[in-house]
Amino acid sequence: MSRPVRSIGLTQVSEWDDGKVRRKDDYLAAEEPLEIRIGEHPISVTMRTPGHDLELAAGFLFTEGIGQRAEQILALESSSEGDAGKRGNVVQAALAPEATPDFEKMRRHFFASSSCGICGKASIEAVRSRCLAPPNPNFRIAPDVLLALPDALRSSQDVFERTGGLHAAALFDSRGALLVLREDIGRHNAVDKVIGWAVRERRVPLKDSMMLVSGRGGFEIVQKAIVAGVPVVASVSAPSSLAVQLAREMQLTLVGFLRGRRFVIYAGAERLADSAQA
Amino acid sequence: MSRPVRSIGLTQVSEWDDGKVRRKDDYLAAEEPLEIRIGEHPISVTMRTPGHDLELAAGFLFTEGIGQRAEQILALESSSEGDAGKRGNVVQAALAPEATPDFEKMRRHFFASSSCGICGKASIEAVRSRCLAPPNPNFRIAPDVLLALPDALRSSQDVFERTGGLHAAALFDSRGALLVLREDIGRHNAVDKVIGWAVRERRVPLKDSMMLVSGRGGFEIVQKAIVAGVPVVASVSAPSSLAVQLAREMQLTLVGFLRGRRFVIYAGAERLADSAQA
Repeated sequence: MSRPVRSIGLTQVSEWDDGKVRRKDDYLAAEEPLEIRIGEHPISVTMRTPGHDLELAAGFLFTEGIGQRAEQILALESSSEGDAGKRGNVVQAALAPEATPDFEKMRRHFFASSSCGICGKASIEAVRSRCLAPPNPNFRIAPDVLLALPDALRSSQDVFERTGGLHAAALFDSRGALLVLREDIGRHNAVDKVIGWAVRERRVPLKDSMMLVSGRGGFEIVQKAIVAGVPVVASVSAPSSLAVQLAREMQLTLVGFLRGRRFVIYAGAERLADSAQA
Repeated sequence: MSRPVRSIGLTQVSEWDDGKVRRKDDYLAAEEPLEIRIGEHPISVTMRTPGHDLELAAGFLFTEGIGQRAEQILALESSSEGDAGKRGNVVQAALAPEATPDFEKMRRHFFASSSCGICGKASIEAVRSRCLAPPNPNFRIAPDVLLALPDALRSSQDVFERTGGLHAAALFDSRGALLVLREDIGRHNAVDKVIGWAVRERRVPLKDSMMLVSGRGGFEIVQKAIVAGVPVVASVSAPSSLAVQLAREMQLTLVGFLRGRRFVIYAGAERLADSAQA
């Protein structure tokens, strides 16, 4: 994409500060819809922060199991068709023939009465049924390395500093070196972007990496990490019950409340080197 | 629903605190899928925190424009069919005949190549095309009332205190009295629940109310507020560019960074009584 990335907007606002009001310029995180298409078939529209759109599409397709192997995603192109406002808000994907979904079946599935059951157990079963192996059981991480990640994330987050409005996701190696960081108004999108980066760099499965997310660790974040083969997921906040269940079931290490000199291990404590095991 | 609400789960975790590790019990925010059906047609599956599911369904249907008037949502029932795990994770809606969507058309629209354009402008046009009036132009709010809302929200948030894992949305009257507060792992769900409460209480349009959300003010939050006729939306964090554009276009008052004795007015400053106008 040669087009400038519009991940920040500038606008005039009024600031009220203890009774005093002044007009000032303020930076805002940009938000625009992105449509992902396979051939003529739109398969997703998501509100995202523009930038790294091809990575977002790659990460989305890969973690949704549409392109199950990185090399099945043959090409991704940001559309330049349409009028000015629309330009760049469509990513066109070309998949290997065997990976191209049966759109008629997807359609029937989406609108058919669900017989698979709607519950947390079924959601976990749906992940299990994809025959994913538990992430690298031999990966180890030292507590001190883990403790340093939030600062490393914050010092690399550029848009957030100016707008206060973005989620971040980052991948680190086992020594805590930053591999990639992406920001987005949507938490899932930030995760899709870092995984999409790895997919495009042919680095999946990410068996020697950890992922840090700025917000909560929900079910879908853990699901995406498992699909990408990431053995450790950490967040500065709380995970959900279903995220913890899925992490335990799939033997992923899930850490929460990573703040200061403290963290909570919800699953997979065996990957914490030395002293972290209770 | 007579069934106990499972909005919190309890689990054993390991806490690492400056090199010391101990096992302890920890509360987690529950997360489970919820399917909303109209007749035999499933129209949405969302990951949510169980509890207030009928409100969630009412708010979703109303803000998505499926039941455009509160009285068109004739009945909502939490399904008790299926096996134990599934029970309560389906809400069955009955709509007035004129409000029941054309499912074939929805299906075609969802999977058809979008001709309406994918861009922020088109997203705003889609809201405008629903012929919604700007929210109550005569509503006024005093800065001191606004400043008191975050504390009021926090003191009423019960699950968050224990889990640290939930978003909240609340409605207040013009004097800052709390009307309703709902929590959910998903920000949109918390908003759907408070609006759904108002729909079921026949209080929409919410022309004399303000809404406070715990997280960021994105496009969809502002969109839902406009559909429900809420004149003022405030958050403790930053809004997105598209949320600000939509608020300005539809003349909604949008406040961000509401913390301590300070806030930022992104749109509709005229509703801030007295000194807040620059």
